[in-house]
Amino acid sequence: MKQISVDLRKRVNKSYDIYIGHHILDRMPPLLARHKWGDRYVVITDETVYELHGKEFVSHLSKAGIPVEILSFPAGEKSKNINILIGLAEKLIGLGCDRGSCLIALGGGVVGDMAGFLASIFMRGIAYLQVPTTLLAQVDSSIGGKTGVDIKEGKNLIGTFHQPRAVFIDTFFLSTLPDEEFKNGLAEIVKYGLIESRGLFQFLEEKREEILSRKAEVLDYAIGESCRIKKNIVELDECEAGIRKVLNFGHTIGHAIERASNYRYPHGHAVSIGILAESRLSEAMGYLDTQVCHRIEQLLADFDLPRRLPPGLTYESILTGIQTDKKKAKGQINFVLLKDIGLPFLRAQVEDELIKNILETLIT
Amino acid sequence: MKQISVDLRKRVNKSYDIYIGHHILDRMPPLLARHKWGDRYVVITDETVYELHGKEFVSHLSKAGIPVEILSFPAGEKSKNINILIGLAEKLIGLGCDRGSCLIALGGGVVGDMAGFLASIFMRGIAYLQVPTTLLAQVDSSIGGKTGVDIKEGKNLIGTFHQPRAVFIDTFFLSTLPDEEFKNGLAEIVKYGLIESRGLFQFLEEKREEILSRKAEVLDYAIGESCRIKKNIVELDECEAGIRKVLNFGHTIGHAIERASNYRYPHGHAVSIGILAESRLSEAMGYLDTQVCHRIEQLLADFDLPRRLPPGLTYESILTGIQTDKKKAKGQINFVLLKDIGLPFLRAQVEDELIKNILETLIT
Repeated sequence: MKQISVDLRKRVNKSYDIYIGHHILDRMPPLLARHKWGDRYVVITDETVYELHGKEFVSHLSKAGIPVEILSFPAGEKSKNINILIGLAEKLIGLGCDRGSCLIALGGGVVGDMAGFLASIFMRGIAYLQVPTTLLAQVDSSIGGKTGVDIKEGKNLIGTFHQPRAVFIDTFFLSTLPDEEFKNGLAEIVKYGLIESRGLFQFLEEKREEILSRKAEVLDYAIGESCRIKKNIVELDECEAGIRKVLNFGHTIGHAIERASNYRYPHGHAVSIGILAESRLSEAMGYLDTQVCHRIEQLLADFDLPRRLPPGLTYESILTGIQTDKKKAKGQINFVLLKDIGLPFLRAQVEDELIKNILETLIT
Repeated sequence: MKQISVDLRKRVNKSYDIYIGHHILDRMPPLLARHKWGDRYVVITDETVYELHGKEFVSHLSKAGIPVEILSFPAGEKSKNINILIGLAEKLIGLGCDRGSCLIALGGGVVGDMAGFLASIFMRGIAYLQVPTTLLAQVDSSIGGKTGVDIKEGKNLIGTFHQPRAVFIDTFFLSTLPDEEFKNGLAEIVKYGLIESRGLFQFLEEKREEILSRKAEVLDYAIGESCRIKKNIVELDECEAGIRKVLNFGHTIGHAIERASNYRYPHGHAVSIGILAESRLSEAMGYLDTQVCHRIEQLLADFDLPRRLPPGLTYESILTGIQTDKKKAKGQINFVLLKDIGLPFLRAQVEDELIKNILETLIT
């Protein structure tokens, strides 16, 4: 038997910058001109964002002499499927796009995941930029290169890791964001404080009012800190082989709640309940001080984030979801637990009975 | 405006081995056990290969204690679409596959492209192995990590670069290959000689009989040399940014013939005509010696490979295809031309009139 080795050791550089500020989109054209991420740009967005910001965004780039087109699809998680994705690919071909074209994801998490996935598979991979318009996308999904679509067996089961070439976070977009959508992002910001930064957590406690009134400089700081925490973790573990899992604090139970509600319950709201549940779990297992656990609950309350199971959801259905995950993961679900604010750790073994007890404390 | 840099410079190692020989599949189980490419394996194949080799292949691994399942889809290029791909993904979920599972592509180019693409997007990327069963796949598509599916706008417009973890080339599979399919691969082997190796070209001239009678050791050598040439090019240019384009010798006109025939004319046959046409183009432009050009035509004739345009195809339709490509590529089509056997070069400007003249010499 003959053996031929294909040597594909190499250095790669997928580094990129995150730009954060209020009304920063006028800073985009010179950066596009300097970095030449594409010889032409196609904005991918949903119909809601298209109505609110699409035309202005495009005219912004056009006026600067940058060749740009825009494609939109119906808003909502239901659009995050392969048929809409292939439809967009066909439209890109119709526009004459090729390997030198660059996509711009203008929208929330669904738009970012779709545009990123499309960029990763169109002609075997092209460049894309993230311009997240929701708080949740600004602090979470726009950074780190996770892309994907849903299939009927579950969410994000088809996708890639494909890093954007840059992320432009304009907090001006948050002014048009509905309250419920704003809260979705707040829950993730609380999570960042809990897994990595006492400073951010204290800032959230102190600046409650300014945050809720969406004061630009306060949001800039909280978003910047969140991005910094996420990027540090992504740098260490781009493809979620290990440490990146701490980003899932609040998400094991959060996801189970989303699934039990058939994804009718919003992600950030489910994560808020998950944060409380997993903090109480940490407390019950003797890792987290009771006072700290109260403090966490108080901050969630300050932001008027949900702290009880959604009405109509039984804790049994949530427990079943966790157990199914466990079976799939060959008995090993890594719960992220807390020893203190900023001190998370992975713990594989958590008794079902204990989870049940905690969930019971969260029944309305 | 705040700026945060995400540092994703790193060393990656996507190296892998190509194993070549006659009846080598009994060498797979120990290699699977040693390298642990997956904690379980799912063979992806088409129905034709399933009938010929599927059960034996699976029982081979099963007997060695390796957990393996098999999924098949209808044979042929028509199956290379996103719906069949998503159907396979759903079946993988049904089998309980996760990020630790590994796919095995058992089949020709369609199977390899599909399984590779599926592996690249299933749960954001899992491992896969190539076990090519056609001569064409053994010398070409199984190496280099190009994956993809067709959309109605064109072939391979959706796909990824995703390298396999190993390639197992068992020349035993060639014994069940129809003559026409065998010729498909021969044309690519001739191409490797032309773009890189006088030695391989001479070997093909000298061993004509043994190759056509599919003598194992002669095939092993020709396939091994082809793989070596391809892997050297892939090492230099994994994502086809430049030098990898020389692999397209014979393919500019070859692809135009395939397309003009609505892909009814087989790839390798079209490449054979393309090789002759592009050799004559090289001769007409004063790069290639007339004697060498005759020698190339003689070798194609020795292997009974097509040297005239398929009946029913006009040269106008082929020329139109090339011109459309040219327009898409902003006027820049890189023809690969020859200065001698083993001495290819890229040439952007070739007069349409000259292409027309050459095509006219190929009318039956």
